[in-house]
Amino acid sequence: MTTSTEPMSAARLLSGLVGALASGQIRVIDLTQTLTPGFPQIALPPEMGQCWPFRIEEVSRYDERGPGWYWNNFSCGEHTGTHFDAPIHWISGRDLPNNSVDTIAVQHFIAPACVIDCSAEVQRDDDYLLSVADIERYEAAHGRIPKGAWVLMRSDWSKRRDPQAYQNFDQTGQHTPGPGTEAVRFLVEQRDVLGFGSEAIGTDAGQGQHLRPPYPCHYYMHGAGRYGLQCLSNLDLLPPAGGVLICPPLKIEKGSGSPLRVLALVGASA
Amino acid sequence: MTTSTEPMSAARLLSGLVGALASGQIRVIDLTQTLTPGFPQIALPPEMGQCWPFRIEEVSRYDERGPGWYWNNFSCGEHTGTHFDAPIHWISGRDLPNNSVDTIAVQHFIAPACVIDCSAEVQRDDDYLLSVADIERYEAAHGRIPKGAWVLMRSDWSKRRDPQAYQNFDQTGQHTPGPGTEAVRFLVEQRDVLGFGSEAIGTDAGQGQHLRPPYPCHYYMHGAGRYGLQCLSNLDLLPPAGGVLICPPLKIEKGSGSPLRVLALVGASA
Ligand SMILES: [Mn+2]
Ligand SMILES: [Mn+2]
Repeated sequence: MTTSTEPMSAARLLSGLVGALASGQIRVIDLTQTLTPGFPQIALPPEMGQCWPFRIEEVSRYDERGPGWYWNNFSCGEHTGTHFDAPIHWISGRDLPNNSVDTIAVQHFIAPACVIDCSAEVQRDDDYLLSVADIERYEAAHGRIPKGAWVLMRSDWSKRRDPQAYQNFDQTGQHTPGPGTEAVRFLVEQRDVLGFGSEAIGTDAGQGQHLRPPYPCHYYMHGAGRYGLQCLSNLDLLPPAGGVLICPPLKIEKGSGSPLRVLALVGASA
Repeated sequence: MTTSTEPMSAARLLSGLVGALASGQIRVIDLTQTLTPGFPQIALPPEMGQCWPFRIEEVSRYDERGPGWYWNNFSCGEHTGTHFDAPIHWISGRDLPNNSVDTIAVQHFIAPACVIDCSAEVQRDDDYLLSVADIERYEAAHGRIPKGAWVLMRSDWSKRRDPQAYQNFDQTGQHTPGPGTEAVRFLVEQRDVLGFGSEAIGTDAGQGQHLRPPYPCHYYMHGAGRYGLQCLSNLDLLPPAGGVLICPPLKIEKGSGSPLRVLALVGASA
């Protein structure tokens, strides 16, 4: 007999997980955008180095190039599509230990997820910045953000299926939501989060270069050895708390990030 | 109060998982080879379409191409490095529903792992074929392979760090271990496995084209909607049973497979 507050054995947890996945008691939610040549990639000023879009080339399709098999080659950037940002991506994280996707401690790729719903605010303001007040409101309703958790900003931005609307450039630059400087500092310094995730094309807002410091989410998160996730989707299917994120990037040698499949485990009733 | 045989709630399982990862009671093992330009890719006869090796190109490194950031672009094949095979990869799986990496049910990316140790046999014979007798010996020692599990063939082949020794070509072709035809049929038909994983460069043996049917693991697994994993490493760190594999491929539109990060959850004492 065990009481419900006693720790469970690892074996019982793992077999319980497998059973709950099979029975549907735990569901797996796909938070990933499909990698297609049409998905927009981050665009920098033309004098800067650019991230490749996703390109795919058929190798064979049950034909003379390979009678029994179908497969493709592809090219992209480490920051194309739904992707992971490692600390080495930013100059503030350049000298940290284990700062690239091949050296990050692998247990960090499975962690709790807190989802802060800013969809109503973003609906009114494309440039919306998540604030400390938003975080405090979230915590009042759903409990304190645990140490080592992902904080995901739900904006419903992933529902913009038109690449132009997703990028949302005008003559003043890109207009997409992200976290404000003080919110980022609060999450890193007061809540010791593992990372920050967004449905938009970057973890920082489209106008983030005008904040101080520029791109505060990149600057503070990566400077503290934390991670980023971008181009997430389906955040509206997650509970505010209690979900577990699975986000293992490709093991690219010295990689600054990588496209990846992001999954979440949630209770069936969530 | 709950007894140790009662099902746990999803919430308790997920919080238990997070706690056990934080405490080290559950460990995460990385089963992935590092993606580098030096890692060998599968090589077909020259008249066939070829899988690209991994190539990487620096976009900026805190320099005039991007003063605050470092990142790379890359190219490879869907079957480069440690990678996942989807049913659509093989002609036998071409018309199955949900047969590409973007449409496979995502709960299949988390499943139990059974590890059959053939390292001693492979030490003596590079062309070793896993047999039904090997599977029966495994089950006698470690219990029946559960429905929906991965079967991983431990060969210690991943310890071959020299690309030539890893590929192991001679004038008669490639010599790497894999499963025999009857073993594959037994796993699919009698054990209803989710897929088959190998440390070698393919799920089939290097001499698999001489078996009947040619490449039986590809033919039967993918024809039955099952999956493959190749270029796995660290299988010697897994318990024979009780581990849980996490292997979410990239969400490539109509993808036949993809490089991916493969992780395993194991009890700390395993
Ligand atoms: Mn990025
Ligand atoms: Mn393959």
